[in-house]
Amino acid sequence: MKIALAQLNYHIGNFESNRKKIIAQIERAKNEGADLVVFSELSVCGYYPQDLLEKREFVERAISSVEVIAKSCNGIAALVGAPSINHENKGKKLYNSAYFLNDGKVEQVFNKTLLPTYDIFDEYRHFEPNQEFPVLEFKGQKIAVTICEDIWDKQPTSNSFARERIYSKAPLEELSKQPLDLIINLSASPFSFNQEDYRKGILLRNASKYSTPMVYVNQVGANTEIVFDGGSMFVDGNGEVVQELNYFEEDFRIIDTEDTSVSIQENRGDYIEKIHDALVLGVRDYFQKMGFKQATLGLSGGIDSAVVAVLAQRALGSENVRVLLMPSKYSSDHSVKDAEDLAKNLGIQYETVHIQSIVDQFETQMAPLFKGLDAGVTEENIQARARGTLVMALSNKFGHILLNTTNKSECAVGYGTLYGDMNGGIAVLGDVYKTDVFKLARFMNKDGEVIPENTIVKPPSAELRPDQKDTDSLPDYDTLDGVLFRYIELNQSPEEIIEAGFEEAVVRRTIRMVNNNEYKRFQAAPILRISSKAFGFGRMMPLVAKFPV
Amino acid sequence: MKIALAQLNYHIGNFESNRKKIIAQIERAKNEGADLVVFSELSVCGYYPQDLLEKREFVERAISSVEVIAKSCNGIAALVGAPSINHENKGKKLYNSAYFLNDGKVEQVFNKTLLPTYDIFDEYRHFEPNQEFPVLEFKGQKIAVTICEDIWDKQPTSNSFARERIYSKAPLEELSKQPLDLIINLSASPFSFNQEDYRKGILLRNASKYSTPMVYVNQVGANTEIVFDGGSMFVDGNGEVVQELNYFEEDFRIIDTEDTSVSIQENRGDYIEKIHDALVLGVRDYFQKMGFKQATLGLSGGIDSAVVAVLAQRALGSENVRVLLMPSKYSSDHSVKDAEDLAKNLGIQYETVHIQSIVDQFETQMAPLFKGLDAGVTEENIQARARGTLVMALSNKFGHILLNTTNKSECAVGYGTLYGDMNGGIAVLGDVYKTDVFKLARFMNKDGEVIPENTIVKPPSAELRPDQKDTDSLPDYDTLDGVLFRYIELNQSPEEIIEAGFEEAVVRRTIRMVNNNEYKRFQAAPILRISSKAFGFGRMMPLVAKFPV
Repeated sequence: MKIALAQLNYHIGNFESNRKKIIAQIERAKNEGADLVVFSELSVCGYYPQDLLEKREFVERAISSVEVIAKSCNGIAALVGAPSINHENKGKKLYNSAYFLNDGKVEQVFNKTLLPTYDIFDEYRHFEPNQEFPVLEFKGQKIAVTICEDIWDKQPTSNSFARERIYSKAPLEELSKQPLDLIINLSASPFSFNQEDYRKGILLRNASKYSTPMVYVNQVGANTEIVFDGGSMFVDGNGEVVQELNYFEEDFRIIDTEDTSVSIQENRGDYIEKIHDALVLGVRDYFQKMGFKQATLGLSGGIDSAVVAVLAQRALGSENVRVLLMPSKYSSDHSVKDAEDLAKNLGIQYETVHIQSIVDQFETQMAPLFKGLDAGVTEENIQARARGTLVMALSNKFGHILLNTTNKSECAVGYGTLYGDMNGGIAVLGDVYKTDVFKLARFMNKDGEVIPENTIVKPPSAELRPDQKDTDSLPDYDTLDGVLFRYIELNQSPEEIIEAGFEEAVVRRTIRMVNNNEYKRFQAAPILRISSKAFGFGRMMPLVAKFPV
Repeated sequence: MKIALAQLNYHIGNFESNRKKIIAQIERAKNEGADLVVFSELSVCGYYPQDLLEKREFVERAISSVEVIAKSCNGIAALVGAPSINHENKGKKLYNSAYFLNDGKVEQVFNKTLLPTYDIFDEYRHFEPNQEFPVLEFKGQKIAVTICEDIWDKQPTSNSFARERIYSKAPLEELSKQPLDLIINLSASPFSFNQEDYRKGILLRNASKYSTPMVYVNQVGANTEIVFDGGSMFVDGNGEVVQELNYFEEDFRIIDTEDTSVSIQENRGDYIEKIHDALVLGVRDYFQKMGFKQATLGLSGGIDSAVVAVLAQRALGSENVRVLLMPSKYSSDHSVKDAEDLAKNLGIQYETVHIQSIVDQFETQMAPLFKGLDAGVTEENIQARARGTLVMALSNKFGHILLNTTNKSECAVGYGTLYGDMNGGIAVLGDVYKTDVFKLARFMNKDGEVIPENTIVKPPSAELRPDQKDTDSLPDYDTLDGVLFRYIELNQSPEEIIEAGFEEAVVRRTIRMVNNNEYKRFQAAPILRISSKAFGFGRMMPLVAKFPV
């Protein structure tokens, strides 16, 4: 059987645009001789619509959109993803479904069994789990139609307290009670830099466990924080990858289930290259889907804003990035020069606005209230907020989106000013540890200097007081990131982290900083997710908790 | 049987404090002759711990805390709430459990069946649903032990698309297969101004349906956004309330299951009084649990900041509230006078800081970039951000928490400045529509003028440009709030709202404003929840969605 894998970038709620895309690929697949074309999970409405699923008009439009798409399925069949109504009078109102379209109509509906409800997933909030396991019979073949998590009954775990089997059912066990010719999986599997290996492992293990070839179609593109990386594939019944679609872009390929001669695999880059590509896609899609073109950001001469500027320029084009340099009396001459050099290298518009007179006015007005008190963090925050106000003014005046440049290490320990440098429409590096920001900068410079060398080699500083260095307040970044990764991604206890070789005082202080700054992260910009545990709705911590370490 | 209802205020993760409270009430109940003392859901660790439940050390401390508490159960039994481990090798790691403690040890564990995963609830994220239905036998009585949602198998719905029965199981149907003497429910049921009636309805209906008396113990107190109002009760087998504990405060009462003579019910106030009491408790607990004492806010002379100031003074005391007046050239003389009068009425410290010189500096510095462009929203935002920076400076310098004064109507349509008047540690009125803010002000003045009459009667204005009125940009508040309530709380479609009698253009424009401002709410402060649908994690909407109305 010839099956087209249609790996597309969907826009949540934009039924017309999604439908046009889907129908165009159905036509193409038909023209190119495919029997069946497979789209990804919830492709008709976009993944994930969250509480839009509680709106009648949203669900009705999704279902009527499926019916329109069905009309274009003549001489070819299609599998598309959309919600469907649970007609039982008990249980959640909706199923997360795969619609089999053939002969101009909906012929069969398959519902998702395993509803991920952890990390960034919240599917049980809206969907009823499937309990029945029909098989699709098409062109004499028996096909198991599954949806994303349905093949993830056994999961990778980050630590020994987490468990591999969080579900009581394994859909493929049910479905394979009869001999299968093929497994199809409609997926919306988000990117994280180690997800690609996990995912491939799951596909290969299942294909070989059930000795059945598998067609896997993932979506591509970003929806706010979540980046989908594509990488759809066809795996043979021995668990070998036969065809693999492109990553980080739309793609389309027709495979022949009889032809399992392995095509040459693209040589995938290291994790820094993947993060780079994910962030470029994340920025581009955020702007495109929000209906914006232009970005602004503050360029300090430091490495975080430099890396964000490069990503923005690559995502949006030089003509769509406009930056502000906002030096104060604590800014080094080098910082201003580094920022200017970067802007010139990127060919982006830059302007300089001095903040000192603004800061002076704030301090003058507050002086009577602060009489006799030492200057300190309050005054540092005033500088950061003056800058935050200036970039927002630029953004408001010209209809730009402000890019936030906070990295994950800072975000974790609260080393940043709320309503100041934490401002922005999207946090580009909020899931990238500082040590990886350095690696990103090196990666960006691999074909010639884009980011000035000095920006990369000088000791990191917020430049909010004379001769300030990040290491005045924080452990060195190798240590800090080591502790943070264990605490956040691996969810290790302080004791486990200490046992791994980190100094107890540093571990406890770091974790205390993480816990004490939940209130700042609560109000942070959405963060492009590139790891297995990003800050945001995938990590819900109670603000008022008192859980001492 | 004599049963003590212990309605307490727990602090998430503060095992020592929770344990002390629980043990003290066990001692008291024993001294006063009770056979059994009942605490609320997850009382040992506080409700709701969110992803702290993924931490081994959190769960281990909860369970060891239960074991310590058990040792104090001699001559009296207790039911406490805590997570327990699911020892099957499949399914989620934890159950949400009620531990029956007797003779110094854990005698039996009952697990929650219905795991609410909608609105502010996310329990399937962490817990496995119970499948078995043992009954507690104690002192010759057969007792059904249930946890909160277990008795909510049939729910009130806000519109015809929502459904009453979102679960396939009804635990009381299973449990009542044998004759029951009593139903006990350990609850953590959050306040909303109409929740009290729903909840009572559920209790009375179940007690009478199963002809079994019911002991219901709720928690009290606020955890960040969520306010628990207490109101624990004992209902007889005819579905009549026999005893009802206090609302919005800790309480303790021993009931005799044989004695169903109805005690006099407290006359409950109207919904505005309930909202008032909920907000006072919400502010007080946020400060207490975060470890802060003092609040700051900006007082504009308008009604929102006036109402917040009164709530803060009632929650924290006059000595713990310090306000800033920050007039600009657009502030009317009356506004300043009204703000001063209010501060004097409340006996709170107030100071005046002028923003004009700061705003002028911002505009001077940006002038070269804005040459030839008209002043507009950008300049209004600069004023709001100058104020936001000033109150944050005060808050930073003196260790205050800034109270946000945005109301729900503004928050809904984005009528406010991100990083300006949207600043704050907690949004006190973020779930209160403007029309209810007026009613709150009147309620506060019922025993004499606290809020100056002029603040209540003058037309609302942001005072960011000459002679500005809210109605320049928004429909009148009666209309606006009518549309918003239908769209947000009732989740009605534009068509349904138009059918209810609202002008089509107004409805579509309002809904467009709501949808276009998800990005602002994403970064808003936590909002004290007093309605059935507050902004925040109980209403998850995708930022990049395009779902035209």
